[in-house]
Amino acid sequence: MDIREELNDFFEESSTEEQDVLKIVLASLKAKRNLHNKTHIGGLLQFETTYIDDKILEMVMPNTPILDNSIGIVHGGLTATLLDTAMGTMASRVPGNKKGAVTVELKVDFLTPGIGEKFTCRAEVVHNGRQLVRMEGKVRNELGNLIASATGTFYKL
Amino acid sequence: MDIREELNDFFEESSTEEQDVLKIVLASLKAKRNLHNKTHIGGLLQFETTYIDDKILEMVMPNTPILDNSIGIVHGGLTATLLDTAMGTMASRVPGNKKGAVTVELKVDFLTPGIGEKFTCRAEVVHNGRQLVRMEGKVRNELGNLIASATGTFYKL
Amino acid sequence: MDIREELNDFFEESSTEEQDVLKIVLASLKAKRNLHNKTHIGGLLQFETTYIDDKILEMVMPNTPILDNSIGIVHGGLTATLLDTAMGTMASRVPGNKKGAVTVELKVDFLTPGIGEKFTCRAEVVHNGRQLVRMEGKVRNELGNLIASATGTFYKL
Amino acid sequence: MDIREELNDFFEESSTEEQDVLKIVLASLKAKRNLHNKTHIGGLLQFETTYIDDKILEMVMPNTPILDNSIGIVHGGLTATLLDTAMGTMASRVPGNKKGAVTVELKVDFLTPGIGEKFTCRAEVVHNGRQLVRMEGKVRNELGNLIASATGTFYKL
Repeated sequence: MDIREELNDFFEESSTEEQDVLKIVLASLKAKRNLHNKTHIGGLLQFETTYIDDKILEMVMPNTPILDNSIGIVHGGLTATLLDTAMGTMASRVPGNKKGAVTVELKVDFLTPGIGEKFTCRAEVVHNGRQLVRMEGKVRNELGNLIASATGTFYKL
Repeated sequence: MDIREELNDFFEESSTEEQDVLKIVLASLKAKRNLHNKTHIGGLLQFETTYIDDKILEMVMPNTPILDNSIGIVHGGLTATLLDTAMGTMASRVPGNKKGAVTVELKVDFLTPGIGEKFTCRAEVVHNGRQLVRMEGKVRNELGNLIASATGTFYKL
Repeated sequence: MDIREELNDFFEESSTEEQDVLKIVLASLKAKRNLHNKTHIGGLLQFETTYIDDKILEMVMPNTPILDNSIGIVHGGLTATLLDTAMGTMASRVPGNKKGAVTVELKVDFLTPGIGEKFTCRAEVVHNGRQLVRMEGKVRNELGNLIASATGTFYKL
Repeated sequence: MDIREELNDFFEESSTEEQDVLKIVLASLKAKRNLHNKTHIGGLLQFETTYIDDKILEMVMPNTPILDNSIGIVHGGLTATLLDTAMGTMASRVPGNKKGAVTVELKVDFLTPGIGEKFTCRAEVVHNGRQLVRMEGKVRNELGNLIASATGTFYKL
């Protein structure tokens, strides 16, 4: 059976949540095709980035069924993905860094349950060294509750 | 336009990679529907778990286009998701822990680029305390190269 | 030869730095005897604590020859000792915590070389949970340069 | 009053523990003078190093009154000092590293109370990169109990 047929068959019995996930996937694939998102995961998680100044950016991840862990709150790995992406994106843009930066190490403190409609990560440059960029990031929900706090070390390519 | 029509239209011009992503998504939705996977993200990342003994499990994540970061290697956040899921799953099963465990903190060291066909995380209990479970995890590719190493603290519910 | 004789003999040929170290040791032993310091190491490192409010304290460590690492800057382990002591002291005093707190885990980022006349650690409660206190600490020299930044998790006894 | 007089006066009323501390200090000052120890703190903590192979060393810290925290077990900061010193010493000796290495970041997990007669830190190179050396360290007491586990990132000078 080809994938299109399979998708149509699946659709017949699909729940609202399943259709929501398919909508996200489709929007994500289209965004990737149009080069709006650089990665599938960034698209699936629907990250939106705002540059605040030359040391700070904010990246928003809306809550969707894709984010749930097995106990109904946001999966910690996805909070970590948001933090790594936000800090890494900012670290790639510090003055003197032309070719991007890769993560050396990431430390995430999970402080309160990941509950909310959207999660905003504020990533900030703590120190821009010759070879390493030291970052910190905080994730808050729309009520301002601090959900996770992180530090990361990035290596300039 | 409804989602099914939109999917069919998208399909007309889809690339092989896009069809591969859709196949993964469909398989993941079916697995979730059949309760094989507890979370969408676990399905999308196609985690497969093997329990080695009462302190160790292995969780495999095959490489797919969904995993790529913007420079063609596995996104560090997804390596972190694999580590958090593997360590958290094992921490939830230690003797005396009936209701699962949540991540308190996670530290990931990225050691070599995430290149390979599949990534195997070996998660091991380091210390099972009264309230906290201390874990470590190592991610290797199919050649045995150590890609990432992590520690995590989990709180028993 | 008894210890007093040995000390007197040592003194004959002692350098100014050696006499400075002995002065610190003596002051520290006296402070411990008078219960001003609870630990020898706190005395040797001459920690002085100021409580700012119910979430923040500052602990000062003056630079002395005891602090030097092998390349003439403050030994990272002693910066870590200052951070652990300051964060742990504050974690022991959060509302509802009567019997103190022990360190679960400590993450220290060393940002700039430990140079200066004195080092001030500002320790702050990030989250006071039922069982865990989550802390952060920053160490600056007298010029305000950020030397190290840390997070710590403490377990209420 | 000069320091020698002050020392002699202090001695009159000194307890056995106080005399033990003075003995350690004196031995440490002599070792530093004879270049056996590179740092005062290494002397005060009486570190002894054994090189196992080109990736592993062991560093022993005997338990003395200097190590106690305020609740009668080894101060976590001093366990961190042992770990940082052992990992940093090994990181300074990896092939291709001629001028030493400084600590970028240190993560210590405290697993069981620091009780025992002596503490042995085994430090091992996990990855020797172009610019960074990634290390891990484990501290055990003489019974083999795992007291603390750590990872560290070091920057080659």
